[in-house]
Amino acid sequence: MALYQEAPIVALATPPGSGAIAIIRLSGTGVIALVDQVFQGKDLTQQPSHTIHFGTIHDSKTPIDEVLILIFRSPKSFTKEDTVEISCHGSGFVVQQIIQLLMRQGARLAQPGEFTQRAFLNGRLDLTQAEAVADLIAAQSAIAHRTALNQMRGGFSTEIKRMREKLVELAAMLELELDFAEEDVAFADRATLKMLVHDLLKSIKQLTHSFVLDNVIKNGIVTVIAGQPNVGKSTLLNALLKEEKAIVSAIPGTTRDLIEEELNIEGVIFRLIDTAGLRDKTTDAIEAIGISKTQAQLQKAAIIIYLFDLSVENWPNIQRTIRQLEKLGVPFIEIGNKIDLAPAELLQVLHQKDFVLISATQQENLDTLKSRLLSHVDLDQLQKTDVVVANARHHESLTKSQEALEEVLQGVDNHLPNELLAQDVHRALYHLGVITGQVTNEEILANLFARFCIGK
Amino acid sequence: MALYQEAPIVALATPPGSGAIAIIRLSGTGVIALVDQVFQGKDLTQQPSHTIHFGTIHDSKTPIDEVLILIFRSPKSFTKEDTVEISCHGSGFVVQQIIQLLMRQGARLAQPGEFTQRAFLNGRLDLTQAEAVADLIAAQSAIAHRTALNQMRGGFSTEIKRMREKLVELAAMLELELDFAEEDVAFADRATLKMLVHDLLKSIKQLTHSFVLDNVIKNGIVTVIAGQPNVGKSTLLNALLKEEKAIVSAIPGTTRDLIEEELNIEGVIFRLIDTAGLRDKTTDAIEAIGISKTQAQLQKAAIIIYLFDLSVENWPNIQRTIRQLEKLGVPFIEIGNKIDLAPAELLQVLHQKDFVLISATQQENLDTLKSRLLSHVDLDQLQKTDVVVANARHHESLTKSQEALEEVLQGVDNHLPNELLAQDVHRALYHLGVITGQVTNEEILANLFARFCIGK
Repeated sequence: MALYQEAPIVALATPPGSGAIAIIRLSGTGVIALVDQVFQGKDLTQQPSHTIHFGTIHDSKTPIDEVLILIFRSPKSFTKEDTVEISCHGSGFVVQQIIQLLMRQGARLAQPGEFTQRAFLNGRLDLTQAEAVADLIAAQSAIAHRTALNQMRGGFSTEIKRMREKLVELAAMLELELDFAEEDVAFADRATLKMLVHDLLKSIKQLTHSFVLDNVIKNGIVTVIAGQPNVGKSTLLNALLKEEKAIVSAIPGTTRDLIEEELNIEGVIFRLIDTAGLRDKTTDAIEAIGISKTQAQLQKAAIIIYLFDLSVENWPNIQRTIRQLEKLGVPFIEIGNKIDLAPAELLQVLHQKDFVLISATQQENLDTLKSRLLSHVDLDQLQKTDVVVANARHHESLTKSQEALEEVLQGVDNHLPNELLAQDVHRALYHLGVITGQVTNEEILANLFARFCIGK
Repeated sequence: MALYQEAPIVALATPPGSGAIAIIRLSGTGVIALVDQVFQGKDLTQQPSHTIHFGTIHDSKTPIDEVLILIFRSPKSFTKEDTVEISCHGSGFVVQQIIQLLMRQGARLAQPGEFTQRAFLNGRLDLTQAEAVADLIAAQSAIAHRTALNQMRGGFSTEIKRMREKLVELAAMLELELDFAEEDVAFADRATLKMLVHDLLKSIKQLTHSFVLDNVIKNGIVTVIAGQPNVGKSTLLNALLKEEKAIVSAIPGTTRDLIEEELNIEGVIFRLIDTAGLRDKTTDAIEAIGISKTQAQLQKAAIIIYLFDLSVENWPNIQRTIRQLEKLGVPFIEIGNKIDLAPAELLQVLHQKDFVLISATQQENLDTLKSRLLSHVDLDQLQKTDVVVANARHHESLTKSQEALEEVLQGVDNHLPNELLAQDVHRALYHLGVITGQVTNEEILANLFARFCIGK
């Protein structure tokens, strides 16, 4: 790949604000000589790569700051261009003075992500790695950080590259047969073709599943606590959070507003939503609104924690409620509360039916409830593999690639001619290429780098 | 001076928040080996000073970030200790992970200013230079920046050193005479002694004057606009600011609250205070408060802009008012307003008396008023010298030094014995030594470095 060495750009690379140090970064043609013009100290143009030099930045005769100059010579830099980093005092005023001086010397203020874009154009990074740089900077949790770092180091790219190679092989098989079509050379083994596509689809589906999972874990799993009034929903919420957030009272229907709290179980965030008591009829207008909100929440929940008050319930009633819950199509966990007040025979029935039996007021058996919650999350997959799709753009391309491959399978079953099958394979290849940037267009690049901070 | 190489400390050196790059700085015994333990790349302990190395920071087997490592070997570093700077991705999460890892390896989190304090203890900087580092980072204006940079580069220290040398000479002269006192060797020339002290006092006074001036310029010059009701004070204020901030009306006594605005004339800030109309009696209680506030403001003003309404005033009246203004002891500028409505003979008299004749409504002659304001500020001295005292601690010590030297002069006049004069000279020396840190105590150091940011 031809090495780009473009016009010099400059930007503050460290966060704005006061600090001990600020770093101003330059990249492009002639930046070492450009900085040397305003630097008093050694002749920077004569210094080797990866060295540091103390001196003073001067605006004609006026000193601006005492600085360290870091020299990176092409191609041994992040952008693969000549690069200079100026480590100056962390003052907004000083930074402004130096950047303006460098701009008067001919450097242009960098666009957001422009350094990383140059690194991409010079083949230092592929697109997924470039995106991971921004993800890494934004990462707030251990999972997001690990995913971004792995992606930046090429883990995801390697996986995509492996799939692309298989697709190229597949296309070659189809096209080889195509060339000899007139001579009626049949495709050696249609079963082999289908097996190859199935393998690829499995890999792609694993990746898209990891995206859904990753999103759920990043945003938290919406978990609704539901049940009849006075069943102990707020008490359970408080017991889980060990804080007094909801108003707990013995009057049925006390909780009117939806209360959302984060419960962290072994690093997984559950968004617990306490609901107004579910009753068939109510005369209280405010409470009625609370209840209709609950119905909507139940349908949006990822998991429902449904509480039964064992001091007043009976088994036929419980069965009726469970049948209604099943109609919602949302996974739920059945909880028997107030076990200290429950009849022994009911407890025995529920124990056999795999209910979680707790006492919210006495904080009994809450750990069982927590591990039951955790078991609803398919963490294994996330922890087994380092390759996680965390980017909506990648997910979209993977989905399009998957669709194309599914059409290949259909095509085989429908005895479509090879040239049509090959078209679909090329479509799958194209979408994988968009992910890593082997296929690009101006729009993709512009959108992608616009979300970077300036200086990166 | 013995070189300190203390326990390893670590801190984030760049501002907190997201950015392309963050710098984590370590200084002290064994920091290169300490970082090498968590670094995958070259063997850092074998690398020369002022070199940069790419690699990965690992927490046992988990990679945390790809980083650049900057090596500074003692004494070629800011602290004169072995120093490592880690240039990592500018993510709060990554920075936390790396700092916590380094702390587990044995580094301690640095106190605010601790790196600079070590630089001071190792003789890299004197106290005024150390203070200037913090001032430079906080500098918001060109004047503050120039003062701090000059101080950091030793301009002020050199001046103090020069004075200390003269004082040491003076002390020697007195003590030499003291030693030979019994043999009755008279002091060669008391006039020479006084001349030396006078020269020193002149230098010190210049410095303390620069402090007052610097403070005035930094904080703005309090400028009160005063005059009878309806004379056009608010109109003038608005014309100067070219904004509609005060309520302008033709009803006498409209302006009730003191309005403060900043007017920037060639980089000097004037704090313009518009006042309620000055009247002898008023029936409006709210307005009365406004007027009593004005009296207080007039006494606190650095300059008064006093307006006369030339459409209603006469020369004897104006003279009476000027005599009252002179009693306040505050510099004032006499302005004749409404020149378009003034009688010609009054204008002629005022022109000869050096009044500034304006029309606030028509914005006539406002530039003359501005340059008259500027002429009240002794900018020349600030611009002539690079050595400006900008620090209250230095000002206090200079004042104490000045007091001691004035006692020397008194002592000479009162024919005090040399040993008493020498005591005062040593006191002056002591206070100059406090400025640069040749005389220090724990308390001075603790207070001084506490105002630094962490990482500096």
